[in-house]
Amino acid sequence: MTRLSAVVLLSGGLDSYTAAAGARAQGFALWALTVQYGQRHAREIEAARAVAKALGVERHLELAIDLRAIGGSSLTTDAAVPLDRDLMAADIPSTYVPARNTIFLSLALGWAEVVGARDIVIGVNALDYSGYPDCRPEFIAAFERLAELATRAGVDGARFRIHTPLISLSKADIIRRGLALGLDYGLTHSCYDPSPDGRPCGRCDSCALRAKGFREAGARDPLLPG
Amino acid sequence: MTRLSAVVLLSGGLDSYTAAAGARAQGFALWALTVQYGQRHAREIEAARAVAKALGVERHLELAIDLRAIGGSSLTTDAAVPLDRDLMAADIPSTYVPARNTIFLSLALGWAEVVGARDIVIGVNALDYSGYPDCRPEFIAAFERLAELATRAGVDGARFRIHTPLISLSKADIIRRGLALGLDYGLTHSCYDPSPDGRPCGRCDSCALRAKGFREAGARDPLLPG
Repeated sequence: MTRLSAVVLLSGGLDSYTAAAGARAQGFALWALTVQYGQRHAREIEAARAVAKALGVERHLELAIDLRAIGGSSLTTDAAVPLDRDLMAADIPSTYVPARNTIFLSLALGWAEVVGARDIVIGVNALDYSGYPDCRPEFIAAFERLAELATRAGVDGARFRIHTPLISLSKADIIRRGLALGLDYGLTHSCYDPSPDGRPCGRCDSCALRAKGFREAGARDPLLPG
Repeated sequence: MTRLSAVVLLSGGLDSYTAAAGARAQGFALWALTVQYGQRHAREIEAARAVAKALGVERHLELAIDLRAIGGSSLTTDAAVPLDRDLMAADIPSTYVPARNTIFLSLALGWAEVVGARDIVIGVNALDYSGYPDCRPEFIAAFERLAELATRAGVDGARFRIHTPLISLSKADIIRRGLALGLDYGLTHSCYDPSPDGRPCGRCDSCALRAKGFREAGARDPLLPG
């Protein structure tokens, strides 16, 4: 029996690793797409490669596009690393990259059409106070509708499905799910401001959210010293 | 009075030049975006630069993303140049690039958000038998809806408008409009298979469509020998 194919957006973080592993557990053959968009740290790309290998993907495609030229985000410019943000705040954080998930899903859609996949997996999360507009269910639904109209496959009657298995999970829920799937989170990278040898800073928003997640899941983060 | 800003997708072809010039004539300050996506000829990029200069844009941003890695199109692979296609045929041509306009509009949307533009101009055309799914009005309408949901600006109440001034014009109509605006089509490039010094082949689908347009408009193409 031929397995269905899914394109998975893989960042090197723990969310996308968990989302991809869930799709694999459902029986999908995985086509991993990592977008190098000028984010601060090459460490993320290395983590994405390690995760893709661990997942046994059919192919890992890395596409480079320098979103620094567009600007507008602390993640792709020299703005200060976001620290000590109120994780309960409802505003959109400085790490928002304009139209990022629209761009990522568009690239995933193009590749999905070429490899014959009708399923795209993205590890977005609307909880944990992310505040990103392009992580909301209504955005995802609008993209599914667009995908039908945007493609030759859609004209031929295909319906694309954007899977967001983590959208309503807390970070602790995500970590519990991943640990149940046997994932090695030591392969992943979350920190906005790692040391030169790649170790997490432990102070940025992303480290804080990750630490809170492991704490609430009652688990130890393998990236941290024992 | 501050002029409104519009992001215009500029390819170096005559359609996007005409669409951008129309927006300028309406009073918009233009921000030109050219995506280098691994298309066959650097000549297109040179034409885009010449056109941007002639239009007096605020800024010309060139973003490189290698869609050859995604594949699926004769425009970005080594497949044969499309020749002698029945221009009346309703099927989708081999020059279709999967999800191209979705990708282009996503990038334009990100930049629009950063520069404060709410208007995006794209020279798509649903006539002249293009057959591309992502040139249809229903695709454009779905993208406008997505743009509201995808962005911080949208959350704050902004409504993005995707302008498609050429969508229902014939090539001859487009050329008439551009000539009325005083455009120099000698700056543009349309050919899929130019000679090493950049001259159009005169045989490919794109040359055929352009020649038909000039003929029906009763005008001479400045790219062709007198």
